[in-house]
This record gives sequence, C-alpha cells and structure tokens, in this order.
Amino acid sequence: MFESAELGHRIDREEYRRREPALRAALLQAQVELGVQKRFPVLVVIGGVDGAGKGETVNLLNEWMDPRHIDTHAFGAPTDEELERPRMWRFWRVLPPKGRTGILFGAWHTRPVLERAYRRTSADRFEQQLQEIERFEQMLSDEGVLLLKFWFHLSKKDQKARLKSLEKDPLTRWRVTREDWLRHEKYDRFRKVSELLVRRTSTADAPWLVVEGVDECYRSLTVGETLLAAMRRRLDAPDAPVPASGKGAAAKAAKALPMLPAIDRRDLLSMLQLDQPMSREVYEPALELLQGRLNRLSRDPKFRRRSAVVVFEGSDAAGKGGAIRRLTAALDARQYHGFPIAAPDEAERAQPYLWRFWRHLPRRGHFAIFDRSWYGRVLVERVEGYCGEADWQRAYGELNEFEAELDAHGTIVVKFWLQISKQEQLRRFRAREQVAFKNFKITPDDWRNRKRWDAYQQAVCDMVDRTSTAVAPWTLVEANNKLYARIKVLATLVERIEQAL
Amino acid sequence: MFESAELGHRIDREEYRRREPALRAALLQAQVELGVQKRFPVLVVIGGVDGAGKGETVNLLNEWMDPRHIDTHAFGAPTDEELERPRMWRFWRVLPPKGRTGILFGAWHTRPVLERAYRRTSADRFEQQLQEIERFEQMLSDEGVLLLKFWFHLSKKDQKARLKSLEKDPLTRWRVTREDWLRHEKYDRFRKVSELLVRRTSTADAPWLVVEGVDECYRSLTVGETLLAAMRRRLDAPDAPVPASGKGAAAKAAKALPMLPAIDRRDLLSMLQLDQPMSREVYEPALELLQGRLNRLSRDPKFRRRSAVVVFEGSDAAGKGGAIRRLTAALDARQYHGFPIAAPDEAERAQPYLWRFWRHLPRRGHFAIFDRSWYGRVLVERVEGYCGEADWQRAYGELNEFEAELDAHGTIVVKFWLQISKQEQLRRFRAREQVAFKNFKITPDDWRNRKRWDAYQQAVCDMVDRTSTAVAPWTLVEANNKLYARIKVLATLVERIEQAL
Repeated sequence: MFESAELGHRIDREEYRRREPALRAALLQAQVELGVQKRFPVLVVIGGVDGAGKGETVNLLNEWMDPRHIDTHAFGAPTDEELERPRMWRFWRVLPPKGRTGILFGAWHTRPVLERAYRRTSADRFEQQLQEIERFEQMLSDEGVLLLKFWFHLSKKDQKARLKSLEKDPLTRWRVTREDWLRHEKYDRFRKVSELLVRRTSTADAPWLVVEGVDECYRSLTVGETLLAAMRRRLDAPDAPVPASGKGAAAKAAKALPMLPAIDRRDLLSMLQLDQPMSREVYEPALELLQGRLNRLSRDPKFRRRSAVVVFEGSDAAGKGGAIRRLTAALDARQYHGFPIAAPDEAERAQPYLWRFWRHLPRRGHFAIFDRSWYGRVLVERVEGYCGEADWQRAYGELNEFEAELDAHGTIVVKFWLQISKQEQLRRFRAREQVAFKNFKITPDDWRNRKRWDAYQQAVCDMVDRTSTAVAPWTLVEANNKLYARIKVLATLVERIEQAL
Repeated sequence: MFESAELGHRIDREEYRRREPALRAALLQAQVELGVQKRFPVLVVIGGVDGAGKGETVNLLNEWMDPRHIDTHAFGAPTDEELERPRMWRFWRVLPPKGRTGILFGAWHTRPVLERAYRRTSADRFEQQLQEIERFEQMLSDEGVLLLKFWFHLSKKDQKARLKSLEKDPLTRWRVTREDWLRHEKYDRFRKVSELLVRRTSTADAPWLVVEGVDECYRSLTVGETLLAAMRRRLDAPDAPVPASGKGAAAKAAKALPMLPAIDRRDLLSMLQLDQPMSREVYEPALELLQGRLNRLSRDPKFRRRSAVVVFEGSDAAGKGGAIRRLTAALDARQYHGFPIAAPDEAERAQPYLWRFWRHLPRRGHFAIFDRSWYGRVLVERVEGYCGEADWQRAYGELNEFEAELDAHGTIVVKFWLQISKQEQLRRFRAREQVAFKNFKITPDDWRNRKRWDAYQQAVCDMVDRTSTAVAPWTLVEANNKLYARIKVLATLVERIEQAL
C-alpha cells in the first residue's frame, strides 16, 4: 500500500513558490463558501509515521486558511473527563459543525495502531477496533461529513535520515525524543500494523491518502491540492434532493474522493526502468534452472496442502501470454488450469462480479493461472465506464478481502503487472499486424485502449496503491525486454512459493 | 430481538385457506416477471432454531412457486471439494443468477453460530466471522441481489413442546434426533449467540426477519407475504439509471426491505394489558421502599466506577415526566442530570445525529436521564418523514452500536417505553386542556401525532424488535394506571442496577 509513497516524490522550491499563492487563495475561497453554504463539515485526519511532516502540515493548513474557522485538535493521554466516558467520546466532542473545518492531529486510529505495534493488544482485538473505526467513519460519511484522511509515510531509511537531520540542527533538536528513536526501532512492526489499518479502513467514501513525507514542498502541495479538490467537488455539487441526505446518485458521486493528484508527475510506472538487459545466453540457462525449481516445488509434499493463484495483468502486448507459457511448461498439465479472462458472458453478468473468479479457485495442490483477472473492474471497467464510480471504488476493498480469504485458506496469491513503454507497444502492434499468424492478436480494441494510455496508467497506479498488500503484493515487471520479464516472473513466483512452504 | 416472535402469533386455518390461493397466484406471477426481467436474483436464507418449521417452509415455497426456477440448497458437513477451497466457496457456487430464486436452508451463518454456541470458537473469532458475514451480505446487496433472511424462532418452552409432539406422532418421530434434544439443552446459549448474530448482521439492506414458528398457518403466510412484498417492490421499481447499478435514490428505496407484515394484527403493544391494578395503599409504601433501594444503590461504592443512562420514551401523555420525578426524588441532585429531548436546534442539526447524545453522557458514578432520546430518529423522524428511509433504516444498527459502546464502558443502559391506550390518551389530553396549570402540556402537535397513532405503534414495534438487545433491553410499561407504571419503572431500574453491580 505504501509503494507510491517511496518513489522520492519532490517538487522544486521554485515551482512550489509559483503554485502556492493560487492554491492558498482557492482554499480560502472554498473555506468562505463552506461557511456560507453550511451544508457539510470538513474533517481532516492526519496520521502516519514520526518525522514525516505531520505537525508542519497541520501548521501550514492553519496558515493557509482562515484559522478562525478551523479547529485543530491533538490527542495525548486521555483526560480524567475523557476516561470517564466511552472511548469515542473525546472524538465526538471535537467534531466540527457544518460549515467548519476540523483538523485532527492523530485520531481514533492512533492508539489502536500503537498498542498493536507494541503487542499490547491481540490481533483479534485489533481487528475489532478496525471494525469500530470502519463503522464510525461510515457513520460520519453517511451523515454528510467530508472526511479526508492523510497518511504521512517515510521508508525506514528516510525516517532515520530525517530524525538525524532534525537532531543535528540546534533549532529542531528538541523535537526528537528518545521515544521517537524507540519507535524507529519498531518501524517494521509499525509498518505492518499500519498497512492493515490502511487496507481495512480505506473505504470508497473515506480512503486513506498516502503521502510521501520526505520533501516538504511535495507533501504540502499534495495535501493542499487534494483538500481543495475534495472541497470544490462537494461545494459545486447540487444539494441532495429531499431529506434522504447524501443518498442520491449525484451526492454519492460527489462524496467519492479523488485519488491523490499527480503533483510531480512521478508515479510507480513512470519510475520503472523498462529496458532491462538480458541476453539469450543468460536467459536460456536461467529459464531452465527456474523451471526446474518450480517443477520441484509443484511436487513438494508441502504444496499438496496448499494451492497457488497466479494473476497476470499488463499493458496490451506486454507479453503476458509468453510469460504464462514459460510458467506452464514447468508444470504437469493435470496440476494447473489457465483462465483467459475476457468480458463477462451472459451467465457471468447475471451474477455478482466476483462469482466467475470464485468458480475457478484451485483445489489443493493445484495452480490457477489467470490471464487478466478480477482487476478488470478497477482497470478496463473503470476507464471505459462499464461500471459506475461507486462500483469500482468499493471494488478495492472487496478485492483485498477476496485475496485475504484466499490467503487465510492457504492459497498463495502472486500478482504480476507487466509494463511496456508506449513506443514498445507501438512496435509490437505493428509487428503483429505484419505477421500473418500473429494477426489475430491485434484488434481495433487494442488501438482504442492505446488512446487512453494515460487513463489506464493512472488506474494501474491506483490499483497497486490500494491492493498491494502484505498477503498479496503486486510485482511490477519491466517488460520491454521479453526475456528479462519472463525470468523476473518465474523467479518471483519460485521465491514466493518457497517462502510460503 | 425476539420479543415479537413470542407473542403466540396465530392464524385460523380457515383464514389461511381463504388467503392462500391469492398469495400463491401472486407469488407465481412475481416469479414469472422475475424470470422475464432478469434484473436481479432473489436469495432466501432460512435460519433459526430447530423445530420452528424451517424445513416445512422450504417445502411450501417450492410447492407454491414454480420449482423449476428455484434452486434449494442445504448445507451439511463440507464435501471434499468444498474443504479444498476457502470457506465461502460453497455459497458462491450456489448463488442464483439474475431472474432466478435461490433458497438456502442454513447458510454462512449456521456454522459460526453453532460453533460459538458449543464454545468451539472464541468470542473474538465469532466477532470476526460476523464481520465477514456482514461484508459478504453487503457485497450481495451492492451487487443487486434481493436478499431475504428469515429467522424462525421458538421460545424454549415452545421448542420443548414441539419436539415432544413430533416424537408422539409415529409419522414424524424420525425427525427428532438425539442431537435435537442435546441442542435443546443448550437453548439459552444458542439464543444468546443468535441474538448477537441477528443484531450485528441486520443491516438496512438485509435485516433478519424474525418469524414465530409455533403456528404453521401464521409462519407460512408471514414468509409468503413478506417475500411477495419484497419481490413486488423491486419488480415495480424503475430500473436504476446508468451503470452505477443499485446506487440511485430510487434503487436505494426499492432495496430497503419492508418489515414483517402484521398478518394476525397481534403485536407487542396490542398484547399488553394496559390497565393494571395498583391502589394508592400499595403504591405509597412500595414507592418509598424502591426509592430507598435506589438511593442506596446510587451511593454504593461499586456504582462509583459505573454510570447509568436511563431512557424514557412513550406515547404522548403516557406519564414519562411523573415517572422521572419519582426517580430523581431518590437521587442526589449533584449525581444526576435530566435531558429533555426536543427537535434538534441549529447547532445540533449541524452535527451527526448522535452528537447531541454523546455530549450528554454521564461521568462515572452519575445518572443521565433522557426524557425522549436517540430513538426519535426511528419514531417521530420516521413517521413524520423528517429523515429519509435509508437514514432511519441504518439508525437501528447505529443505535445498537452506540448502546453496546456504552455497555462496554460500564454504563448501565435502561430503556422504558410507556404505553397508554388511545382512549386513555384522549381522557388525559382533555383533562390537561381543562386544568389551567397543565394547559401548557398540550399542544397542536399532540393532537396531530394522535392522528398517526397506528403509524407510531408500528414504529414502536419495529424499534423494540430491532433494538431490544441483551445489553440494553427495552422494558414495556403498561401505563394506563400511573401508579403501576411508576412502580414498574423504579423496580426495573433498581433490579437492573443491582444485577450490574
């Protein structure tokens, strides 16, 4: 879930200076309209790791906007008054009324995450708290609150560097406490627990927006622009009809949040080095070696109690079929089944979306290989508008749950995204058109999809951000060189199965 | 949650014979339209206690409707095939496609409930399973499935009688197994676990419909009429616009399910014997005694770590104020706070619905007494249309969660509904108008509410059915005789606090 926030996002200070005044003015304007309309409150929740700029951002928002209409709250140890009431009372007390903005520096998630990271609560108890959080946020959203949750992220390395640099400066030294370093030591645990929080409480109405905290200009602009876009979307939407507040289709659409804007045009895919070297001399023996290992794993007695689901997604002509053939060549035909996934047929359209994938789940000791998959909903269906926004927004959660159920059952879930460059795709399309026996592989659909290249890339980045989880991470495969791609796929698969057994 | 299903509901066999043919014809007709429209599937889930007529009802539905378009499934121990896939796979396999009807005799809830009742799973694990169930049903509902869940209920006494009568008849003896009697012994545990299931998985889109199983004619008509009403509502609703299936306001309203129809005009309130004897000679010493006990309890050191929330709801002029005064007379004024709840003011309207009640939660060792309460949403706001159907439908779950949070914190929640007859209300209204100093107590609103008497009574029955829980049960108070009502209120309160300490 944190992949996109470890790309080294940054914005020049100059660009920042150029963009800040307009953003600031627009935020002030939105705040004024919010106060006049008094139709909904804005609630900004700030969470994330230490040293990622949470405090600075809170101060900045207060500086940018009119602080008379903002209520900022931080939550330390509960007061006597608070201890005497149920846990959520302290948060209910500070909810902003319609027309105002509340900023919560830490919120209902903070203690559950820390207590779980320090192993003071059980996994089951934490699950229950996540559920409480989900319900509470659902209630806020049903009641019309515009809820924006920002998660400030730093990699372990960046956190260390940040704490050190704060310590070096006499002006900021006081901000680094022993506690901060102790928490840094527990970084991996904290990250794992946080990932579960972010996955389970990222609903369609209130997803966590994960912001890379390293570069101040980047994170400030990102938060500001996101807040502005969300406020404008709600302010400009027509009011919901009748008292069934927030239930109309228009209101629903207005409620769904924009994903993070691409402030610095740096995203997961654009950061990939698509041309990777791999000569045939290296490829042939490596392939043989990996296929041998995969074959042995497939016959391992331990695998008889497990199963594997392998998902291939990727740009058109990225080489999914070729990679799959190198994989199946290592397996006994009785032990795997391949499922090419196209548009749903009539029987499939008559069922809930995931039905056709549930049908194809493998038995113990078997592989199911999906050439395209359940991710169609958040890729082609989203981009082409085959389903409504509410449907693909809720899909992220459903897909994560689906894979978590597979994992809980002992199924190993391995997911590949094969990425080629736009030029490489053109080259392959042309080549396919010219070779008679490959002609069937290129259709008008392919050319049409190509026109929406950017929209697809955005959908892929969002998909990886929202569905790359500890139990079922995405592997991005640089695929301009087919040989390299096939080796990376096989090596990853072998490694994942070895780890699991 | 099961109160309404222990009233001895029944329908004459004659009346049944009179009504059955039309119901049957209408169900067949609905089934034909369902098959032609192919817009959604119908999924009927049958759960509940042994001996309550589950099997008979499943057979009857197959007899009434065209069995060629119904798929009925029962679930025993999982097959080999099923064991090799995740837990939910067996249910995905049998989902009916759009246009068809599926009947599940036992479903995803069955094993979790039994395992919990037999203490084979922990409370935390059961909570997690409830959550999985909730999410799965939410997905079905989001995907457009018309999901109807019937819970067949018998009291412990009725279950025993039923098992015995089956055993007596040589034709049905085979149906009673040793297992049935073993389960009967665990009735109380099973009931407690079932209540939690029904409470936690009764969402606005898919509430459990609790049907009393004693009388065959009653339960058959109830299930048939409910199924028919739900199907007609969806069949007659215009199709949702655009691909955002099931997300429009109209679709939302069509999705919300009707409550159980009042087949035999027997409901919780109509079964109350409102005129209860209580002379002043009995009343005076009883009052003094109870007030003394309440006072001692309020000063009990154990109460210093607890708190109490007392809710008074009731018909207009039912004597809430008088009952509250007899209660507060027993308490130190520093120890309690009374909150008369009227229509929300501007500040309250600017916040989520429950905000104004959270504000008033008592500190440890204190009482908060609410003269009307959070139940306004499912009473006056529902009946007068001050909020949309989706809002009051989701409120049941929110109110239950709210009270569960209070309970978890150690707050004792006691809820009273004071009921008077329509004639008694008229008498009191007239008396108020004639006595100058009581004149302020009668307003045009009161007369207007009175015109909606039946709608209010229905709302009250639904409220009790959906929000009377183990942690916060409703106490219905027969209040035609004020003296009796006050004593019942005080006695119940004293008893609940004594139990809790």
